[in-house]
Amino acid sequence: MVKKEHGQASSFPRDKMLQAGIIGATGYTGLALISMLISHPNITVNRITSNTYKGKKISDIFPLFKGRFEKVLVPTDDNHTGKCDVYFLCLPHGTSMEAAKRLYDGKAVIVDLSADFRFEDVKIYENAYIPHTAQELISQSVFGLPEIYREKIKGAKLIGNPGCYPTSAILGLYPLLKAGYLAGDIFIDSKSGVSGAGREAKLGSLFCEVSEGFRPYGVGVHRHEPEIQKEVSKLSNLKIMFVPHLLPMNRGILTTIYSTLKEPLKTNDVLTLYKKTYEGEHFVRIMDEGVYPDTRFVRFSNYIDIGLKSFDDGRIVIVSAIDNLVKGASGQAIQNMNIALGLDETASLTALPQYP
Amino acid sequence: MVKKEHGQASSFPRDKMLQAGIIGATGYTGLALISMLISHPNITVNRITSNTYKGKKISDIFPLFKGRFEKVLVPTDDNHTGKCDVYFLCLPHGTSMEAAKRLYDGKAVIVDLSADFRFEDVKIYENAYIPHTAQELISQSVFGLPEIYREKIKGAKLIGNPGCYPTSAILGLYPLLKAGYLAGDIFIDSKSGVSGAGREAKLGSLFCEVSEGFRPYGVGVHRHEPEIQKEVSKLSNLKIMFVPHLLPMNRGILTTIYSTLKEPLKTNDVLTLYKKTYEGEHFVRIMDEGVYPDTRFVRFSNYIDIGLKSFDDGRIVIVSAIDNLVKGASGQAIQNMNIALGLDETASLTALPQYP
Amino acid sequence: MVKKEHGQASSFPRDKMLQAGIIGATGYTGLALISMLISHPNITVNRITSNTYKGKKISDIFPLFKGRFEKVLVPTDDNHTGKCDVYFLCLPHGTSMEAAKRLYDGKAVIVDLSADFRFEDVKIYENAYIPHTAQELISQSVFGLPEIYREKIKGAKLIGNPGCYPTSAILGLYPLLKAGYLAGDIFIDSKSGVSGAGREAKLGSLFCEVSEGFRPYGVGVHRHEPEIQKEVSKLSNLKIMFVPHLLPMNRGILTTIYSTLKEPLKTNDVLTLYKKTYEGEHFVRIMDEGVYPDTRFVRFSNYIDIGLKSFDDGRIVIVSAIDNLVKGASGQAIQNMNIALGLDETASLTALPQYP
Amino acid sequence: MVKKEHGQASSFPRDKMLQAGIIGATGYTGLALISMLISHPNITVNRITSNTYKGKKISDIFPLFKGRFEKVLVPTDDNHTGKCDVYFLCLPHGTSMEAAKRLYDGKAVIVDLSADFRFEDVKIYENAYIPHTAQELISQSVFGLPEIYREKIKGAKLIGNPGCYPTSAILGLYPLLKAGYLAGDIFIDSKSGVSGAGREAKLGSLFCEVSEGFRPYGVGVHRHEPEIQKEVSKLSNLKIMFVPHLLPMNRGILTTIYSTLKEPLKTNDVLTLYKKTYEGEHFVRIMDEGVYPDTRFVRFSNYIDIGLKSFDDGRIVIVSAIDNLVKGASGQAIQNMNIALGLDETASLTALPQYP
Repeated sequence: MVKKEHGQASSFPRDKMLQAGIIGATGYTGLALISMLISHPNITVNRITSNTYKGKKISDIFPLFKGRFEKVLVPTDDNHTGKCDVYFLCLPHGTSMEAAKRLYDGKAVIVDLSADFRFEDVKIYENAYIPHTAQELISQSVFGLPEIYREKIKGAKLIGNPGCYPTSAILGLYPLLKAGYLAGDIFIDSKSGVSGAGREAKLGSLFCEVSEGFRPYGVGVHRHEPEIQKEVSKLSNLKIMFVPHLLPMNRGILTTIYSTLKEPLKTNDVLTLYKKTYEGEHFVRIMDEGVYPDTRFVRFSNYIDIGLKSFDDGRIVIVSAIDNLVKGASGQAIQNMNIALGLDETASLTALPQYP
Repeated sequence: MVKKEHGQASSFPRDKMLQAGIIGATGYTGLALISMLISHPNITVNRITSNTYKGKKISDIFPLFKGRFEKVLVPTDDNHTGKCDVYFLCLPHGTSMEAAKRLYDGKAVIVDLSADFRFEDVKIYENAYIPHTAQELISQSVFGLPEIYREKIKGAKLIGNPGCYPTSAILGLYPLLKAGYLAGDIFIDSKSGVSGAGREAKLGSLFCEVSEGFRPYGVGVHRHEPEIQKEVSKLSNLKIMFVPHLLPMNRGILTTIYSTLKEPLKTNDVLTLYKKTYEGEHFVRIMDEGVYPDTRFVRFSNYIDIGLKSFDDGRIVIVSAIDNLVKGASGQAIQNMNIALGLDETASLTALPQYP
Repeated sequence: MVKKEHGQASSFPRDKMLQAGIIGATGYTGLALISMLISHPNITVNRITSNTYKGKKISDIFPLFKGRFEKVLVPTDDNHTGKCDVYFLCLPHGTSMEAAKRLYDGKAVIVDLSADFRFEDVKIYENAYIPHTAQELISQSVFGLPEIYREKIKGAKLIGNPGCYPTSAILGLYPLLKAGYLAGDIFIDSKSGVSGAGREAKLGSLFCEVSEGFRPYGVGVHRHEPEIQKEVSKLSNLKIMFVPHLLPMNRGILTTIYSTLKEPLKTNDVLTLYKKTYEGEHFVRIMDEGVYPDTRFVRFSNYIDIGLKSFDDGRIVIVSAIDNLVKGASGQAIQNMNIALGLDETASLTALPQYP
Repeated sequence: MVKKEHGQASSFPRDKMLQAGIIGATGYTGLALISMLISHPNITVNRITSNTYKGKKISDIFPLFKGRFEKVLVPTDDNHTGKCDVYFLCLPHGTSMEAAKRLYDGKAVIVDLSADFRFEDVKIYENAYIPHTAQELISQSVFGLPEIYREKIKGAKLIGNPGCYPTSAILGLYPLLKAGYLAGDIFIDSKSGVSGAGREAKLGSLFCEVSEGFRPYGVGVHRHEPEIQKEVSKLSNLKIMFVPHLLPMNRGILTTIYSTLKEPLKTNDVLTLYKKTYEGEHFVRIMDEGVYPDTRFVRFSNYIDIGLKSFDDGRIVIVSAIDNLVKGASGQAIQNMNIALGLDETASLTALPQYP
């Protein structure tokens, strides 16, 4: 059954373009936002910011935009309040909550790609990150995982866009958690491409420090662990262990999840549960039995592909794949914006995965 | 000056979709064609063929298409005559001319991605390849390099889509050749990603035989040399030397060309000549002085980026970059089809380069 | 404590060189054997075989050997009985047992790199592979994991060299299994470089099918699962689940193992157990607390690096890294030969890891 | 004809170990020096320096050394005069000449891996780099290209180790230049792996800025151009053009050189000239006709492989390949030290290339 029309009717009048600002536009998530929004039928990117490159045309720094998008970057530290209908914050945590405080006016939609508004419980946030200086906004914010919180996202003015690893892990677990079928501890083994580390001159992200090697990092201390755990804890009392690894490639996260079912189920029955749970979802694709996701088949797209296998004794392995910069960041941010503004949820997100 | 509307008015009525067939759809050029044509406003891909995978859904072999394009593959050897308005032949040379013979009826447009219809002079073809068994069609065919032969392509029914290396080399040289400014022999040093070798189980294309290595191949005997030479010879009596190399990456060709000008010219004057020669071209981007192309900034797009530097003594170096599967193959094939059918030349070719 | 002298006194008279034959020398394990044995003080490689390249000089196929090792390849199918003191079988399973039958004479040492002599219980082998046609030799064979079976390997004439994944998994688990400390099911998440798939022209090993992608394979059906399980079962009644993944790189396996301790132990106490268990082992390196293995730091060496972390509630994660072609194949094969023949166990295995 | 004994008789008494210091030991060239010197029969590395990591064990930063070489790093800025028999300076230019001034005493051998002592003519150096503050030492220094300047290197106390690109280009051209056979301008198209950029946190060396892309850089302004030109000018009045490119891989330089012979020569006759010119050289391998170098076949070794093809009309293409960190830096530095000290020239340099 092919969804021929990928997208739903938009409730938005096409004749009025909305203005978008990308605060911190020259990192990988900012660049990905521009690349996608350029084809959005309702959105014009009218403001891009960078402290490092302020005053320069973005196409002079990134010739890929030459002839297509040649806007001049303005300082991130400028006051951008009231200038846009939607703001994407592509800033480090801490900096982001400060920007949100300045920009929040109950009218513009703010999608924050940092961790600052992902946690309903400020204590969990502060335990994992830093003291929160915009606590008054937390109750206004929504955790932007559309497949679970779509109804809350509609009309929201402040959206905490989920982390890349949590997106892959939570959507991989959600149907079983929701159904209450899981019994054993959950081991989450994630592997991410290097773009997840951002466009910063860090020793550990050098080609020669990544290529032809593979390693775990942040074992037991990665900040995405509490983000995953708090969602798991809403639906069960199970504990997770999360171990991320660095892949010698640019884009893509593959997450392999191990756990145990309360009672053994056939693989196909679990797949049916997944298909049912995600029925109508544009960006979730459940593989058939015996087929498993490959990051190459979601690359540059907003899809999450999920496959799984259960065993006679109740053990189960679930595998999910996303593009960390799309469904794991900028694509999901646009999806959230589309929902919040009542636009076609798939607008500017229909690009097919690209391979090879 | 940003070209906001990238494309020209189409002379084609939008209410009638044309039917396209991709003969040999499961190689990298076939897959790239599907990926791009899926967003074409006037074209429906109604026929995809493969002898290897016949009877299977393409989305079962390549899950990237899951939920989006799930057509069943029919045998390449079937008779496809009269079934489509346009055929893309993604077949090996030799096989391709035979397919063209069967499909050519003076009505459907045939874009051949093999070498079989790139040579006006059959002797050059046969010297480089094999005996030509469809010589009667050669006079009907057009060499599909739109930036040079656009007028001939309009209304053509048989188009020989240029090779990937020749596209990068000829467009890199054309303004200087046309102006008659070159004096010295031309040394063409090309480097290509591995997808240029096709999706065939060959030892030399294995990950472990390519990764972390770099080598020349076909030195002085590569079949793209006569294809470049015949175009150079139309505008000068200069000889080329062509040395291709294999890059440890998927997509992209970068060609570095060395030669000598009859009289020294300033870099900026040569760049001005290039900009003027390619004025109005949608897919040619001339870099500013001091900027050189990078394959990463054309990847997944139909652009060719060109930069150059001339020296006081007349020596000159020209650098061009394309995505070998797009401007070097499937993108250019669609561009040719668009021109031949009187459609918007940029239809389904407006994707921005993707990075990282 | 630096082991300044890496190696033990050899019981072998240095004035007599032993003759080695590599049966199937042009695959990655065969090539790695030659590269290492060339510096062995007691071994001369006097026979290299290949059906594909028979009659050719190996240095003409692999110019890396030019000027250093230019022997002519003889047919694998020739009769090599009685010609060498030690044979390395780098053949597919099935073919290998037949070669072993021909070569076994109770005098020459045979190290089989295939799976044919890894299983004491022929039923497990036949269930995972094919009918065994040399069952009379199974009782003569030893599973060649020196850190566990060194005493049996001494003097052995037929050694089943362990699989690459099993080496990384079993050595990662052994101290805890031996101590009887594990309680919960064992989830083994392994990731391997592409050289593990061998030097065969397979579609799935192409650069463009591997690069910039990451996927699991053989989920629940990989033949290394029973090989790991049979070793685990000797020391416990725990079940393992094994999921291998394909890394976009040449060499290296990283295995992340999740399980639960009977009673919680501090990380450092478990590390002490590991250091004690592997005391005196030349090729096992136990990381300090907070440090985890990276395949890049064992690449081209015979080391296995192991790190781990335990949690307050008893959950534990163990990470091991090897070079799949060295400790996972050819290096371990040489280590086994050295032990079997009474040579210095580290002879020709002292190369440092190479980076970058 | 296989050189069975790769190395020449050493004039050095084996019973006295010489002390070596590596000033700047934690960059890629410093690490490569340690890795190779560890197996040197006459050298002990007794001093390694780093301002960044001073006071730490090198094996704690690079676990590859764990159990094998665990020396503590001392500050680069310390006074190391009179402490070693040989110093390797792995420092930036400028810093290096200052260190050389402090360390030079006419007794210890100094091998400088920076550019500071590569130029006999200080004006060329200062034009390309910075003012030279140790000009009094220039006349004491030797350009360390053993295949050309071996006699001068013997007994030298200050050696300017050649650049990586110049090594590949000069040795590729030398036989033709020396014979006076070249007539036309020389176009040198070089491609280097990323390790050539050093172990510094630079944006342009990030995995995501290098992987899956290919670009030229330093066109017409790279500092290695005058280094190559000054050597070419010693033997001819020809001009070179040098264009380096960045390869998405770790190690290796491939240089493709285009020029024209005064009179046409057959490929085999030129190859014979090369073999004769480099007769007896341990680390130069001339390929047979039709075979061209591949960086993978020199990786991790001190070899330079050279292949070429000449055409009927006198045009010629020469291809050379080296490992930029070995023959292009640290390996050549050791070769220079061996010659300067009268040791076996191949000591600790006999490792075979490693593949894959």
